[in-house]
Amino acid sequence: MSSAANSQGAFQFGVAGMGVMGASIALNVADRGFKVAAWDRHPEKIDAIHAKHGHPEMKGTGSLAEFVQMLERPRRILLMVTAGAPVDSMMEQLAPLLSPGDVLIDGGNSWFLDTQRREKAFREKGLHFIGMGVSGGEEGARHGPSLMPGGPAEAYALIRPVVEAIAARAESGLCVTHVGPDGAGHFVKMVHNGIEYADMQLLAETYDVLRRGLGLSADALADTFAKWNEGIAESFLLETTIKVLRKKDSETGKPLVDLVLDKAGQKGTGKWTVQVSLDLGIPVPSIAAALDARNLSAMKEERVAASAKLPAPPLSLTDEEKANLVSWAHDALYAARVVTYAQGMRLIQAASKEYRWNVSLAEMARIWRGGCIIRAKLLSPLREAFTQQPELPNLVVSDAFAPVLTKMAPAWRRLVGTAVRLGIPVPVFTSSLAYLDSYRSPELPQNLTQAQRDAFGAHTYQRRDKPEAGFVHSDWS
Amino acid sequence: MSSAANSQGAFQFGVAGMGVMGASIALNVADRGFKVAAWDRHPEKIDAIHAKHGHPEMKGTGSLAEFVQMLERPRRILLMVTAGAPVDSMMEQLAPLLSPGDVLIDGGNSWFLDTQRREKAFREKGLHFIGMGVSGGEEGARHGPSLMPGGPAEAYALIRPVVEAIAARAESGLCVTHVGPDGAGHFVKMVHNGIEYADMQLLAETYDVLRRGLGLSADALADTFAKWNEGIAESFLLETTIKVLRKKDSETGKPLVDLVLDKAGQKGTGKWTVQVSLDLGIPVPSIAAALDARNLSAMKEERVAASAKLPAPPLSLTDEEKANLVSWAHDALYAARVVTYAQGMRLIQAASKEYRWNVSLAEMARIWRGGCIIRAKLLSPLREAFTQQPELPNLVVSDAFAPVLTKMAPAWRRLVGTAVRLGIPVPVFTSSLAYLDSYRSPELPQNLTQAQRDAFGAHTYQRRDKPEAGFVHSDWS
Repeated sequence: MSSAANSQGAFQFGVAGMGVMGASIALNVADRGFKVAAWDRHPEKIDAIHAKHGHPEMKGTGSLAEFVQMLERPRRILLMVTAGAPVDSMMEQLAPLLSPGDVLIDGGNSWFLDTQRREKAFREKGLHFIGMGVSGGEEGARHGPSLMPGGPAEAYALIRPVVEAIAARAESGLCVTHVGPDGAGHFVKMVHNGIEYADMQLLAETYDVLRRGLGLSADALADTFAKWNEGIAESFLLETTIKVLRKKDSETGKPLVDLVLDKAGQKGTGKWTVQVSLDLGIPVPSIAAALDARNLSAMKEERVAASAKLPAPPLSLTDEEKANLVSWAHDALYAARVVTYAQGMRLIQAASKEYRWNVSLAEMARIWRGGCIIRAKLLSPLREAFTQQPELPNLVVSDAFAPVLTKMAPAWRRLVGTAVRLGIPVPVFTSSLAYLDSYRSPELPQNLTQAQRDAFGAHTYQRRDKPEAGFVHSDWS
Repeated sequence: MSSAANSQGAFQFGVAGMGVMGASIALNVADRGFKVAAWDRHPEKIDAIHAKHGHPEMKGTGSLAEFVQMLERPRRILLMVTAGAPVDSMMEQLAPLLSPGDVLIDGGNSWFLDTQRREKAFREKGLHFIGMGVSGGEEGARHGPSLMPGGPAEAYALIRPVVEAIAARAESGLCVTHVGPDGAGHFVKMVHNGIEYADMQLLAETYDVLRRGLGLSADALADTFAKWNEGIAESFLLETTIKVLRKKDSETGKPLVDLVLDKAGQKGTGKWTVQVSLDLGIPVPSIAAALDARNLSAMKEERVAASAKLPAPPLSLTDEEKANLVSWAHDALYAARVVTYAQGMRLIQAASKEYRWNVSLAEMARIWRGGCIIRAKLLSPLREAFTQQPELPNLVVSDAFAPVLTKMAPAWRRLVGTAVRLGIPVPVFTSSLAYLDSYRSPELPQNLTQAQRDAFGAHTYQRRDKPEAGFVHSDWS
């Protein structure tokens, strides 16, 4: 590690927090020719990074005061610490050391309302605060993440040369843009993660139906998915699935995925996506079902016990089902994924209106095209749909997707019908289909719901035949 | 209205807030022979109540100070104001007027964490605070609600004679019990409402499948449901459905339900149930799907527009389906309802552990047997199940329900299969079935999920064959 002494103002960018993500981004920035100052409360972490990667453009310190002094003004500091209280603590320590016009970027998965509060607090001190979603895991951070910064436009202008240098490059351009003011970037990243939950669960359900239903091996499934990945279903998560299915355990020679325990957890961004969707009144049932699936998987011991009390239906497929299940699964996966992204985009649109962020959905699709976990081929027509019609109420009615959904829905229905009969749970396939069927139903049975509410709680209702009468109450006895 | 002067200490119970619910409970208490002091910021409301109902045992005032002085000590005051800030405001105004040992009861649908905070604040002032769920609508409040009070045991002892006098009387006994400390009562009421959402949506989906699928009229459906209501499916909400379906519009003579607009909203307790379930990691997918269904119904104009872009599948039923749909629907409704209650009970159990409330699920089933909106015949075996096994992990594996679910599941699968093929959305039927199928699956596909997470994010995983190794990481490339 080089000494930081006599370096006052010589560094162009600072990264505070040398965990896996912080270190990877710092190295990425240094790769692009920026002189990077690094801080960590355990400065030996920085020594370890230098020992492993070396990098003449990067110098570290364990002193926050020294770290701040190393940076040219206006300073640009990326905070990569755990979301929550640590962010507030770092802000408190940094604020007195900073000068008017300096920019602090929070690159963690922070709750967007915290980001709004923090941006306001910094603004009142004459400082800039940016909440930036960072997607792509360690690999993305190191070589090209998708970046979702939200905050004041003038602050974005200051960090733009750096974030554009390090972001992923896709055919759609650089995977970074100014998402909007205050919490917009963290909100969009949160929804990105929510979509990720649902997309992963769709892949898990597809895998389960084909594994249980047809008895396909991990290798056979990898072959099937590899074919799909050459077509419209191409995505980073599908590619990851193929890679995972092909991996063999070094000891036993068995597919490693077969040795992985089927217990998953959920927390943070996925959960927040569903919670805030309820506050906004915008349904994201596919994301909610994906979270529930993880929570149910975590109850492994209970599930094993329950299987003795609640037998599974017989595993008998018709010849037609055997012959077509793979192709039904392909169409179901693609169509349900479209519905999942549609829910996420709709949620961003609603929040953007609520908080006056003016987020461009087309731009979000563009910056998700590379670097991030939900990058997928379908983002290209999705971007096109929102470019042509920025106020599109729902992706499922777009000219790009409505015909595809209509074409694929019959296969999707067959897949769900088969899984339901066999007792293979497909909660995201069914939730997504129910969403689509509800959204395209001109009539739903909530007339009964409203009548019931009026009957037992005098909640009133509207009449179809007399909209001018407003909310009325009847005696239903 | 009688004058309140010279009445110092002469009244046994106070009700503050003379909205529909407050007035109904005050009259109920007075009916039981208690002398009731009533307060409202608009004292003319009290005059109106007296004008309509009269009641020698009840006297009102628009002065809070006078109201408090009218009550014998320790005072017992039921607050019936809108949940949220009004409760805090009333507490601030009342606290200086009260004496040590007085009891304030919040009978609104308050957020249970607010109740915890309020109980603590009052306790520190030497005052008692009880958060009490009140279910049954206006009719219940007037003639016998189900009451779910949570707070200090010594405070419950003080209000017990009154709440036992006014509560509904079921064959299971009085529909009130001391639920537990601080926020326990409001939590249980919140989950009650969550179950109510899901149960209402199941009825709406049943109605929709039979209406659209078989073309049954409102009267024919009422006849069918009336038969069901004589058996195990008997419930207050089914009874209400029958009543609603039979009601004719006085002008047109048409079934009134057919004239009700199919737009419903959601807010408050149902939403909170799902939000807190995510914090606790306890899935309640049936409740979540019911909320989403209401939100989707509210998008009426979008749905009508979407129906032109996304055609419905052909409405063709096989002879077998035509012949059996009604009987499948009966079994599906009952089984899905069991799963819905199972989710709610599980959530209460988890919160009771988290907050050390020691809630008795058997007692909750008992006090829900009368008065409240989700009262239903199935609460009797449900109560029995939790009486025999208070730590039962899930209602679906109980001896009382596992065989019934196993017997009814095939019909449920047929109903869902038919609805999915016809494009009739049945989100709560499918979510509940996916929950059941997940819970009774010893193996789920989250091994793939965990492998994916480890592959792109180094999140680590556990091995089935080496539990002793704990969480490990692999290079999946």
